[in-house]
Amino acid sequence: MEKYDFGLIGLGVMGRNFILNIAENGHTALGYDLDEEKVDALNKESKEFKVKGVNTLKDFISGLAKPRKVMLLVPAGVVDKALADLLPLLEKDDLIIDGGNSHPNDTERREKEITDQGFRYLGVGISGGAEGARRGPSMMPGGDEESYNLVKDIFTGAAAHVKGEACVTWLGKGSAGHFVKMVHNGIEYGIMQLISEVYDVMKHGLSMENPEMSGIFSEWNQGAVASFLVEITADILEKEDKKEGGFLIDHILDSAKQKGTGKWTSQLAMDFQAPVPVIDSAVSMRHLSAFKTERLEADSILKGPVGRIDEDQATFINKLEDALFFGMLITYAQGFELLRIASEEKGLGISLSKVARIWRGGCIIRSAMLDDFMKAYESDPQLPNLLFDTKLSATVNEKQDKVRDMIIQAVKAGHPVPGFMSSVGYFDAYRSGHLAANLIQAQRDYFGSHTYEREGEEGVFHTDW
Amino acid sequence: MEKYDFGLIGLGVMGRNFILNIAENGHTALGYDLDEEKVDALNKESKEFKVKGVNTLKDFISGLAKPRKVMLLVPAGVVDKALADLLPLLEKDDLIIDGGNSHPNDTERREKEITDQGFRYLGVGISGGAEGARRGPSMMPGGDEESYNLVKDIFTGAAAHVKGEACVTWLGKGSAGHFVKMVHNGIEYGIMQLISEVYDVMKHGLSMENPEMSGIFSEWNQGAVASFLVEITADILEKEDKKEGGFLIDHILDSAKQKGTGKWTSQLAMDFQAPVPVIDSAVSMRHLSAFKTERLEADSILKGPVGRIDEDQATFINKLEDALFFGMLITYAQGFELLRIASEEKGLGISLSKVARIWRGGCIIRSAMLDDFMKAYESDPQLPNLLFDTKLSATVNEKQDKVRDMIIQAVKAGHPVPGFMSSVGYFDAYRSGHLAANLIQAQRDYFGSHTYEREGEEGVFHTDW
Repeated sequence: MEKYDFGLIGLGVMGRNFILNIAENGHTALGYDLDEEKVDALNKESKEFKVKGVNTLKDFISGLAKPRKVMLLVPAGVVDKALADLLPLLEKDDLIIDGGNSHPNDTERREKEITDQGFRYLGVGISGGAEGARRGPSMMPGGDEESYNLVKDIFTGAAAHVKGEACVTWLGKGSAGHFVKMVHNGIEYGIMQLISEVYDVMKHGLSMENPEMSGIFSEWNQGAVASFLVEITADILEKEDKKEGGFLIDHILDSAKQKGTGKWTSQLAMDFQAPVPVIDSAVSMRHLSAFKTERLEADSILKGPVGRIDEDQATFINKLEDALFFGMLITYAQGFELLRIASEEKGLGISLSKVARIWRGGCIIRSAMLDDFMKAYESDPQLPNLLFDTKLSATVNEKQDKVRDMIIQAVKAGHPVPGFMSSVGYFDAYRSGHLAANLIQAQRDYFGSHTYEREGEEGVFHTDW
Repeated sequence: MEKYDFGLIGLGVMGRNFILNIAENGHTALGYDLDEEKVDALNKESKEFKVKGVNTLKDFISGLAKPRKVMLLVPAGVVDKALADLLPLLEKDDLIIDGGNSHPNDTERREKEITDQGFRYLGVGISGGAEGARRGPSMMPGGDEESYNLVKDIFTGAAAHVKGEACVTWLGKGSAGHFVKMVHNGIEYGIMQLISEVYDVMKHGLSMENPEMSGIFSEWNQGAVASFLVEITADILEKEDKKEGGFLIDHILDSAKQKGTGKWTSQLAMDFQAPVPVIDSAVSMRHLSAFKTERLEADSILKGPVGRIDEDQATFINKLEDALFFGMLITYAQGFELLRIASEEKGLGISLSKVARIWRGGCIIRSAMLDDFMKAYESDPQLPNLLFDTKLSATVNEKQDKVRDMIIQAVKAGHPVPGFMSSVGYFDAYRSGHLAANLIQAQRDYFGSHTYEREGEEGVFHTDW
């Protein structure tokens, strides 16, 4: 019986697409799912490739070449269950790959439990959605590097390519892959929030129509903010509604759902004491959006301006573009600094230039600016923050007055722009050699005897206030 | 041998003060600490009261009247260790009280473990610092109500009193007490951040001197923002430095420390999908303040205005007062809404009017506005958010244009005001019946087939974009 190179558990859209992608790039792959319909769907599509779907774990395991390479593409909540079913059937040195969005702490726990039993384990983040899984995702593998080498060719073939380079490379030890993917998603939350604020101001502040807004986003997608998320926004805004007419966007409920990876980013960033306020804003705004009933009621009770932006439309739209650039750059800078801090603290050895490189294609946050980030970290791998790079600091310095103007006008007109405000609050605090945190230190010592430090002196001090 | 009414483990400043407070109010109390110096310190101060310190657990346990009432006042990190030492010496129906800042999830776990063994357990938040512990703190007990009744008289005597009412009452089941205390501390972080931003703008934007600022805070403490934190800010700003001369505040390092309760509030709020963006800002700004070296370097690289506020000083100071009122109110509103949501979801049965009542005195976030919050929840216990109260909504509606102006001028002049910006971002989003989250829903469906809902229709939908 012929043995397959690669095994994949979970044949949802993502899994089916990914296994076909692998096969198309010259490897044989076996898929497993309990759901016969999903198995059939794969077998129907797989004719031209050496790909097969099965629906018993026994057939799956016996069909794989040793050492087996088995990837899980299942929801984060069922990974432990899937592993419990799988492990008793595997042999020493078989490799298990968790390709889902697992929490980095879970990945660390599982790596230990599973390698202790003599198996190999990798946590791999995959971004690109269903389309990316089929045509080439960005892949973020972490764990033991030797284990990664077992699947390196398969992953390199399947990944997106930018300028001839595959958007996959070994990123670091332990939970490095899932940590990078989590931060990717946090940045994704931040950028989506920023784009939605731009849309809000265009729509309610400039009274722009959908096709007009779509046109602006298309235009922007040729410039400094060129990115997948800007590109799809242009598509979305011109999509017509087949059910009721008009534009689809105007029929969609303004109550955002989430799967929690943005939340994890904010929560873990707080544990690492790494400030990511744009991402925090995006998370809290998704939560706030779900309070639809309260908001509708508050709409009639709470007062404030809901007004037109008091500026020439073309001029203001140029500011919006600069503001979006500024906000996106700050969001990436916060995410990358979180990665740096977490990698140092956990000893993961993540190379930030590699992260920027593999995010350039395939993934949801791919954008024109990632090329500059890659170069920034290549020329100085110790860069504490992207804002210290000469080219990038020059750009933010040039654009910061535009984002101020944009915020000032939005606040004046009553439009919520918490993401942009967080980006400027962070920028103004970060560039401040003297923050007002001395007062916070004094207050803590006053009421709780928590002590404080003094400028230019060693030690801690307490005052009897 | 005489038996004592109440036992306390941990004779640091807080513990010593609290046990003396209990004794002063007519109860006998026995304290235990391994550290002989602390025991001696208590015994030196306790002469006029029926209070004693011992340094063996054996003497401690045998000295307490049954059922024993033992409170732990130890750091959150050593509670489990202290319990492990204590439990083998106790008898059925003895009551253990954790009076520290434990994480609510730890309290839930411990309550189960400990009551399963036949003991009683309460998690009690205590606020007021060293001074409050001695003169009357605000106390937030949660757990089994019958157990609370065993110490009700002792706690009622020891607590702060406002208009004849004790700032202590049973708040709810399980982790209710520690949850309320955690949110108390989250609000404390938020208000401290707001006050520090006001100080920053006064100092760097209006070039005000310390005594002048102190005078303003003193004046404000007679008005709408009257509160313990405003009061101590006035004291702090006029404190002279004994070491180097000038004012102490100017020698204190602008790098804020923390013990993590604000962080827990943000992290748990995200788990409950309750938006608390002002608190999130305060947490991330404390983290950012610790990057002193980076900030000093960024100060010379990143450009932006660092300018004077371009308005008559007295006029602008009036706006600052209104802005602080607005920001504080929004911070409380976020904290109370988090409590409502968490209490409903966890079935804790927390009464928000009781919370407002016991926060009016003794605790760090006591302020003039808590009286209005208490009345708001008394007249409508189902109030989803304080902003729906008629009186409070009228006040924020009146003040919202002042805080906008204040933010606009701070952003224009380059001063970081992330706390205030978060309060306005929240306000403008909360009062928006139609947020731009429809675009976020569309994007999620576009790239991840995550589906979306439609306005006024049941079900979820997916579009082939």
